[in-house]
Amino acid sequence: MKDGRYHASNQQISTAYKIIDSNFKGDKMAKHSYTPVPFTSVKLNDRFWVPRININRTSTLEHEYDQCKKTGQIDAWDPKSTRNRHIFYDSDLAKWIEAAAYSLANFPDAEVEKRIDHVVDMMADLQMEDGYLNSYFINVDKTQRWKNLRDAHELYCAGHLMEAAVAYYQSTGKRKLLDVMCRYADYIDTTFGAEQGKIRGYCGHEEIELALVKLYHATKNEKYLKLAQYFVDERGAEPHYFDIEAKARGEDPQGFHFRNYEYCQAQVPLRTLNKVSGHAVRAMYIYCGMVDMAIETDDKTLMDACDRLWANLCEKNLYITGGIGQTANNEGFTFDYDLPNETAYAETCANIGLVFWSHRLLQLYCDGRYADVMERALYNGVISGVSLDGKTFFYGNPLESRGGYGRSEWFGCACCPPNIARLLASLGQYVYSVGGSEAMVHLYCQSEAQMTVNGGLLTLKQKTEYPWDGRVQITVDPPKDASEFTIKLRIPGWCRKAALRVNDKPVDLEGIVDKGYASIGRTWSAGDVITLELAMPVERVYTHPTVRQNFGYVALQRGPIVYCLEQADHAEDVWRIALPKTSELTTRFEKDVLGGVTLIEGSAMAASTEGWDHKLYGDEPKMTPCKIKAVPYCTWANRGADAMKIWLREM
Amino acid sequence: MKDGRYHASNQQISTAYKIIDSNFKGDKMAKHSYTPVPFTSVKLNDRFWVPRININRTSTLEHEYDQCKKTGQIDAWDPKSTRNRHIFYDSDLAKWIEAAAYSLANFPDAEVEKRIDHVVDMMADLQMEDGYLNSYFINVDKTQRWKNLRDAHELYCAGHLMEAAVAYYQSTGKRKLLDVMCRYADYIDTTFGAEQGKIRGYCGHEEIELALVKLYHATKNEKYLKLAQYFVDERGAEPHYFDIEAKARGEDPQGFHFRNYEYCQAQVPLRTLNKVSGHAVRAMYIYCGMVDMAIETDDKTLMDACDRLWANLCEKNLYITGGIGQTANNEGFTFDYDLPNETAYAETCANIGLVFWSHRLLQLYCDGRYADVMERALYNGVISGVSLDGKTFFYGNPLESRGGYGRSEWFGCACCPPNIARLLASLGQYVYSVGGSEAMVHLYCQSEAQMTVNGGLLTLKQKTEYPWDGRVQITVDPPKDASEFTIKLRIPGWCRKAALRVNDKPVDLEGIVDKGYASIGRTWSAGDVITLELAMPVERVYTHPTVRQNFGYVALQRGPIVYCLEQADHAEDVWRIALPKTSELTTRFEKDVLGGVTLIEGSAMAASTEGWDHKLYGDEPKMTPCKIKAVPYCTWANRGADAMKIWLREM
Repeated sequence: MKDGRYHASNQQISTAYKIIDSNFKGDKMAKHSYTPVPFTSVKLNDRFWVPRININRTSTLEHEYDQCKKTGQIDAWDPKSTRNRHIFYDSDLAKWIEAAAYSLANFPDAEVEKRIDHVVDMMADLQMEDGYLNSYFINVDKTQRWKNLRDAHELYCAGHLMEAAVAYYQSTGKRKLLDVMCRYADYIDTTFGAEQGKIRGYCGHEEIELALVKLYHATKNEKYLKLAQYFVDERGAEPHYFDIEAKARGEDPQGFHFRNYEYCQAQVPLRTLNKVSGHAVRAMYIYCGMVDMAIETDDKTLMDACDRLWANLCEKNLYITGGIGQTANNEGFTFDYDLPNETAYAETCANIGLVFWSHRLLQLYCDGRYADVMERALYNGVISGVSLDGKTFFYGNPLESRGGYGRSEWFGCACCPPNIARLLASLGQYVYSVGGSEAMVHLYCQSEAQMTVNGGLLTLKQKTEYPWDGRVQITVDPPKDASEFTIKLRIPGWCRKAALRVNDKPVDLEGIVDKGYASIGRTWSAGDVITLELAMPVERVYTHPTVRQNFGYVALQRGPIVYCLEQADHAEDVWRIALPKTSELTTRFEKDVLGGVTLIEGSAMAASTEGWDHKLYGDEPKMTPCKIKAVPYCTWANRGADAMKIWLREM
Repeated sequence: MKDGRYHASNQQISTAYKIIDSNFKGDKMAKHSYTPVPFTSVKLNDRFWVPRININRTSTLEHEYDQCKKTGQIDAWDPKSTRNRHIFYDSDLAKWIEAAAYSLANFPDAEVEKRIDHVVDMMADLQMEDGYLNSYFINVDKTQRWKNLRDAHELYCAGHLMEAAVAYYQSTGKRKLLDVMCRYADYIDTTFGAEQGKIRGYCGHEEIELALVKLYHATKNEKYLKLAQYFVDERGAEPHYFDIEAKARGEDPQGFHFRNYEYCQAQVPLRTLNKVSGHAVRAMYIYCGMVDMAIETDDKTLMDACDRLWANLCEKNLYITGGIGQTANNEGFTFDYDLPNETAYAETCANIGLVFWSHRLLQLYCDGRYADVMERALYNGVISGVSLDGKTFFYGNPLESRGGYGRSEWFGCACCPPNIARLLASLGQYVYSVGGSEAMVHLYCQSEAQMTVNGGLLTLKQKTEYPWDGRVQITVDPPKDASEFTIKLRIPGWCRKAALRVNDKPVDLEGIVDKGYASIGRTWSAGDVITLELAMPVERVYTHPTVRQNFGYVALQRGPIVYCLEQADHAEDVWRIALPKTSELTTRFEKDVLGGVTLIEGSAMAASTEGWDHKLYGDEPKMTPCKIKAVPYCTWANRGADAMKIWLREM
């Protein structure tokens, strides 16, 4: 672990947070918290994730690099380039570097390293004397530096570059980008703060807060943690910085396009937030930063705010797909119990942000409800964001489509493609956690993982066809001298009936399940086998009746997978299909469909347009029997930009 | 009829069109067309309309005048005024004058005339030497005259002033405003046209076309008809005038806020239109102009376009309320079979425009389907636009509300309030038509009307409690020397069972009903009584199954009245109420509720939130029995800005 590389050790390193230092002074909540097993210690070999991760490495990363070249995101670092530049270009390329770095950790690739090194050289060359680094403002107009924190994304770009720097350093041991970003962070630290003479501002698009905590963990330089703390503490304070800087620009603060600072979670101080609002990606990033800071500083006021926000999000604002953000208007939240389907925004980045936030809360609380939401997002609204071939992407992930909405190769604002790439390249980290004498299994997927329990090396080998089958077998290879410990297995919230055996002896779940986890504490021997059977029938899922959009409608879910009807599988207009309550639904695994998926089939009724020529209103349409075939939502629009529906009228 | 006043004769005068001259040379389609009996010849004495018309006269007109004063719409004509001005102020005040003028025709009022005369004096004083008259451009910037026809509403304002001038002249015989507007029209005629040296443009907001036809009828000056013809013919021609003038202003035509000229029905020449599009009020006004021109010039190509547009509107884009225009984005149409309820725009002005257009088509074709739509709009989406006290107004008329959406006293763009005032002040004209030896009854409402049939005076006396009861008794007082003629009674499209008697003898409807009208041709004697019984049970109405928003939903309609649930009448959240197919629905007239309405009552089921604490997804919500009480949609939001729903989930 001498240079902090991922592959220097496959233990105790987490990319999400608390990366190196788990004994930081003042980390008072550490006793309550767990550490994710890093993705470098988790070898996935399942049929669901591995193909996606491979495609991500072999196709997506290459495609994204090409797009960055093509659109000028790399040339943007060349001061001589005359190509279009954009204020958020740095962040997209940074996320690509971060994604590529994670990939390198498990799959070294000299060619990719060379590409990154080239970009890093350009960045280092462009960095200004004082440490400032932003390809847009340096090349377009240096005088506008820090003039519009509300809109200009400067600190946001800095944050993503910091994440990239930490990731590349940890994957390769190369310090150049890390050093560049430390210089930049040092300069930011001298520039922003509550002290006299500093700019008392913060970024309109949060991100730097969580990035600074990562930088702090990678460097142990407390300055970065304190800077993050400043940004978290200052946000939303009065007199409002965004008002002050708008006036300094000669603008009326009331002229802000989004009208109030809810858009960027700065309408009030963060500790007083009660309800999710505004731009969903920004919200997720700052909520992550709040958890990070709460852990570092044992700040209950921040955690209380997170608890309130979590409840509001998950009880009133979460799509069944794990998607968040109901409207494109603000790329974010509307109001409680409002879940429009066709116009759902549910940006891929926001859904990924929810994974980040859930994952952090899960480590802190080890409560299955966080894993449930993380799993819901991962298996549905996150990976719907990328095509099976890894080359096209959704920005928004609606729950219904009239057709004609397909994935794109790239976007003018290309935040989502590299975000999903970095998630997939580091996916293994979401599966397990450890904490003292406990090992936790959050997600079920065939894999082999190593982790430290009681100071010794534990190997867990999962065998499963999850998410298509609910049977999971875990073979335990415990540390030789520390074999008394607890394995906690998640009993997913979607599961109504679970059965557990250890070495083929049934274990009564009654009494050992707490907060969604079954705790098996015992003295383990090499070769012990845990078998978990999670009953996985097709579930008919309903929404809280206050959600007017889904009243009378039902969704099909099996295990963590949410299903949808696509037009391609139906002769009848999917918008005219209703599902009788009595319809029996059967499942069938089809290895040649959509990369291998379990389908749900059954009988339904379709409204006929017979007799409806030349009229819009009339007697009840005739319903005629039809068949339905539902496919996993995450695979939709891989056979053309078809009409699609998750919520079906039930009759 | 010597000075064209309404009250000089109560026959042969129509405010809608063909006002004076029914024998215009070249009117080749006249043989197919009918003439509305003017509102001055129709004395209404029913319980539905009379209270609304009285409130309109005694409260709305006064309120609107006060608002015009308060907001500076009258001061706008004073060049010395320093108050805010707006490009469409002239049109709002013009519509108020028109409304007041119609009211004066039946209810002379010296005080109101004085007010109008005062405004007319200001207008005359402001009129420029060349005839130009626009309070905004004369007072704000004369150099901008005609510089932006696409956006600046100049000819639109001119059109409304022409309508006002004709109405005031016909009501009072006073020519001053008519002369002012003729001068202005003369000047417009010298300015616009296909001839060399003239501006080859037309208005972005149609209206002047139909107004010029009215002016032509009032003055018999064919120049105005030809000018209308030019505007109709030129619209949408290439090279596109809006492109040309945008470039002349130094603007990129592609920068047009609404992206293409569908917004103002100018994307192609009018005769090639196939489908309704763009701003719904503009669409209705130009469609009216197209019918007017088609009648005057016997132009089948214009009528064919109108036929296509009508079919597209009524078969694919019409709300059950008679509202039109699905979205606020363009204040207009979206796409076929798209009928969002909560976000429906259905602007009061657009719905009124649909009445104007239907009424014109009805005269031409005498086909009940036009009367059906006219009636649907009048009894629902038009009068929903004004409160029962006549003092607050809806701009948009959505079909659902979560609450909090109430009527306003006025609007920054106050087109709707005076529009509904002019409609109500002239409502009688929609009830009857005449044509040669035929008298037609389109609407049923207690009234006494005089009209010319076979050159003699026919009096029809309707006795009915319509729309609350389907029984209609018509007493006939025929012209003495021309008593052989036909009375055509509309059998409404909503009616499944009608029975007819003449002098208590049953008349078989079989064979005498054509295109929605029962023709009773005979020699009439004074005191003959026709009795029509229109069965009026509560109907469950469904939408074409391609309309995804209403799939599985039902609306309640009785006679022409569309019903809704308002929160005020329900203990349960109306959004959680479902109506079983088997529920029996009863009706009850309540004279003290909402000005006297028939209520629909019955049993339903409400989804319970019991067991839904702290979760968003779960098992099917429990349904518990509840009662519903439906009120006429047109009366909603008169007891507070309640939640409201027309379409109910059916189970």
